[in-house]
Amino acid sequence: MLNKTFLILLIFTPIALIVNYLHLSPLWIFFLSTLAIIPLARYIGKATEEISVHASPALGGLLNATFGNATELLIGIFALNAGLVEVVKASITGSIIGNLLLVLGMSMIAGGWHHKKQKFNRTGILATSSTLFLAAIALIIPAIFIQTAPNINPQIINELSVFVSIFMLIVYGASLFFIFHTHKHLYSEEVGIYEAEWSKRKSILILILATGLVAWISSILVGSIEPVVDMLGWTQLFIGVIFVAIIGNAAEHTSAIVTAIKNRMDLSLQISIGSATQIAMFVAPLLVLISLFFNTRMNLVFNTFELVSIVLSILIVSLVVEDGESNWFEGLQLLMAYAIIAVAFFFHS
Amino acid sequence: MLNKTFLILLIFTPIALIVNYLHLSPLWIFFLSTLAIIPLARYIGKATEEISVHASPALGGLLNATFGNATELLIGIFALNAGLVEVVKASITGSIIGNLLLVLGMSMIAGGWHHKKQKFNRTGILATSSTLFLAAIALIIPAIFIQTAPNINPQIINELSVFVSIFMLIVYGASLFFIFHTHKHLYSEEVGIYEAEWSKRKSILILILATGLVAWISSILVGSIEPVVDMLGWTQLFIGVIFVAIIGNAAEHTSAIVTAIKNRMDLSLQISIGSATQIAMFVAPLLVLISLFFNTRMNLVFNTFELVSIVLSILIVSLVVEDGESNWFEGLQLLMAYAIIAVAFFFHS
Amino acid sequence: MLNKTFLILLIFTPIALIVNYLHLSPLWIFFLSTLAIIPLARYIGKATEEISVHASPALGGLLNATFGNATELLIGIFALNAGLVEVVKASITGSIIGNLLLVLGMSMIAGGWHHKKQKFNRTGILATSSTLFLAAIALIIPAIFIQTAPNINPQIINELSVFVSIFMLIVYGASLFFIFHTHKHLYSEEVGIYEAEWSKRKSILILILATGLVAWISSILVGSIEPVVDMLGWTQLFIGVIFVAIIGNAAEHTSAIVTAIKNRMDLSLQISIGSATQIAMFVAPLLVLISLFFNTRMNLVFNTFELVSIVLSILIVSLVVEDGESNWFEGLQLLMAYAIIAVAFFFHS
Repeated sequence: MLNKTFLILLIFTPIALIVNYLHLSPLWIFFLSTLAIIPLARYIGKATEEISVHASPALGGLLNATFGNATELLIGIFALNAGLVEVVKASITGSIIGNLLLVLGMSMIAGGWHHKKQKFNRTGILATSSTLFLAAIALIIPAIFIQTAPNINPQIINELSVFVSIFMLIVYGASLFFIFHTHKHLYSEEVGIYEAEWSKRKSILILILATGLVAWISSILVGSIEPVVDMLGWTQLFIGVIFVAIIGNAAEHTSAIVTAIKNRMDLSLQISIGSATQIAMFVAPLLVLISLFFNTRMNLVFNTFELVSIVLSILIVSLVVEDGESNWFEGLQLLMAYAIIAVAFFFHS
Repeated sequence: MLNKTFLILLIFTPIALIVNYLHLSPLWIFFLSTLAIIPLARYIGKATEEISVHASPALGGLLNATFGNATELLIGIFALNAGLVEVVKASITGSIIGNLLLVLGMSMIAGGWHHKKQKFNRTGILATSSTLFLAAIALIIPAIFIQTAPNINPQIINELSVFVSIFMLIVYGASLFFIFHTHKHLYSEEVGIYEAEWSKRKSILILILATGLVAWISSILVGSIEPVVDMLGWTQLFIGVIFVAIIGNAAEHTSAIVTAIKNRMDLSLQISIGSATQIAMFVAPLLVLISLFFNTRMNLVFNTFELVSIVLSILIVSLVVEDGESNWFEGLQLLMAYAIIAVAFFFHS
Repeated sequence: MLNKTFLILLIFTPIALIVNYLHLSPLWIFFLSTLAIIPLARYIGKATEEISVHASPALGGLLNATFGNATELLIGIFALNAGLVEVVKASITGSIIGNLLLVLGMSMIAGGWHHKKQKFNRTGILATSSTLFLAAIALIIPAIFIQTAPNINPQIINELSVFVSIFMLIVYGASLFFIFHTHKHLYSEEVGIYEAEWSKRKSILILILATGLVAWISSILVGSIEPVVDMLGWTQLFIGVIFVAIIGNAAEHTSAIVTAIKNRMDLSLQISIGSATQIAMFVAPLLVLISLFFNTRMNLVFNTFELVSIVLSILIVSLVVEDGESNWFEGLQLLMAYAIIAVAFFFHS
């Protein structure tokens, strides 16, 4: 049933490509290409899961971790190439906040509406929430650095960002080793209950095709952002943080909620909090390193408003998950935190 | 016995009214009216409890939640009417900090002195502590907003404050639904052990009378603040944050401690942390909305020093209660945190 | 075996004294005197432990608590005397961060490598982590005070620092009372498993001798800092925060790791987190009070970068220890947090 919806949504892929070819209004290009990305992102996810069944758990985990954020990574690369560093940072911010507050909040509300109290593995989730807090440290330190040394050579900020990014990727790599090797028993709920529907060949083909299409449409989407900013009067910050992030994570969004309703909270949290962690600890530092090969360098200094939003999101989620239980009220708290931050981004100029 | 003390204190009500009528020194008016409010606040609390016994639990909860902070709300309204927005914010700050650090700290010390280790329901208290952290977010976001967009139209800050206030009230309403309906079993200790002493009619009469008197004396108290500031040389901030808050919460203070000594920590925390939550999530946003009908608008931008104090108080309390246990040393930590903040407010100009 | 290494290292004590007497390069004096302090610090620790066996637990605890940071205290006093207030603050910062992130991180990695999951007493460690957070409050409040009242008389900052220091020492004293008297059962693992190797007389003699030598060499070390800053081009901040701190805590470092490998995590945490707490709640405020008798007053206002690093370290450690368990991945997170902060301090000017 879920598949059918996404199958129908696939129609937006050719539409978006045609509309772009016909040079229609950037507004149409923007909205249609965001819509086109939703089902493709779902197919990337599905194909990765299928391949994982055929692969060893460790390789499967690595595949999931890498392709799970292929969309964000591809949009990021094209935006970097276009010199839109602020859009990249805004969409990273939006993905982190969106997954932590909106997706997780909706999941806890939906799940909590059907189940009075939902339990999940504390040790696993606490390891993730301290990883998230480490991501917060990795973003706070460069920001404070620049604030306390305002006359510093921008080159030094770039160097610092490269070092910090490498440390983040080390932790991210170690977290995969932790999850898929030394402590895999903590995460066993997610493993082994999945049965292959597609052949190995079909999965690989779909993965390549969907990733290619996402790359193509991402480049179109990124090209339409600046004209849309001018036309709608929305700020680049609002579009990046709220709009692109909601659309870009629509696929994760639905599966996190569906899983929560089925009372499989460990998996649901893995999708929402796990995604946020991957964006923060893998996509963000990787884009910093990739930007070394572009004209415009990306550093890790987010603007204060983005930074504060990320840190507050991480802290409230840590507080909410620390008892290994959730209920609808905790979900509502996260959702309202999202509402507060989203309204502020809307008004912010 | 407790009742007797408060009965005797009632004598200050007519004295305060007479002293005000005779236009004696504002210093006398200020101190006598604060003293007069203490027993009246206790009678509002008592009458609400009595009516709750006759009413359904849900209605009782609602009554408690609304009238529990009638004093703060009334003082706030009169101060808003007099244009003393900073005093309102200072007394909100003071009530939050006072309840979280002073009242809770004293309760844990008093209780911990009689009992080596005191336990309380973790799920309930964690729901409250994440609500408090949401309050922190609701106050931090507008403050950072104004700092990162210093040239913004003040009107936008007011609009943002209205939106955020509405979100806060939604969470507050939902918390009542959570506590009194979907998850009332978590809070059962406080329910059903209370037997009515007054008739329904007597309770309603006393409630109306006491609330009316508090309103009257609050208006007198507020009028005396400015001359007192001039006379004592204390800052408006110190009077609001420390002095008014201690006096205004004297009734909660005594009952929280007495309950802690009886080893009923769930109830004691409900009084101290619950009060702070009500001030933050109900009184503060309600005053923002009420101010729409006054000449001077109130927004949610607290000054940095108030904001930092509130956030630190919320964080240390979250840390202290997260294990579902308390002891005297944790109480002392909270008390010393209060001492540090209070001294700083004293020196601050 | 451990003893042998430290015995050999003792050779650096006479070497450092001779090199200083010969007025060789300050670089040699700096490095040799830091090396000379390592074994002496270990002997102070050992002698204190030996005396504790002969003394009552309470007196033993007090001795441990006081002499455990004799090195830091002595270096601090000599640096204060030389007017190097910023070096004192930097080395306090470095000791706190180093113990919380580097020493604890390495211990969790080393321990976690040998044991899948290591448990420790939650109540005890949570009491310590809220004490650490109180230390954070005690450092944040004066910093925010000066930021929000930039034109304030420096004398008021000094007075505020004295008050806050007294409150911190009260909490520190109370924590000893909590640990060694009212709640000693929580900390029983560390008590009673130690057997005396030295006689009481020998222990006291060694304690006096080693403390005297540390004092002497500290004064030499402090005198060499300024020329070294000029020669190496490293900043005073980096030397204080990273270099002096690593050397100065080398003895604690090795014993925390060895204990963690033996799976005695309670003791290991007591060394790393306990040391950080002692520096923050005992050494720092004591130096503020001692500075009243020197020409240059020390206040509690740390620079923003130091303060943020301390607060982030305290928060991530609180998050990591809150479940009463540790594993190698949590250790790696702490270590990488240290790496991020250390690199930033290196680049900071």
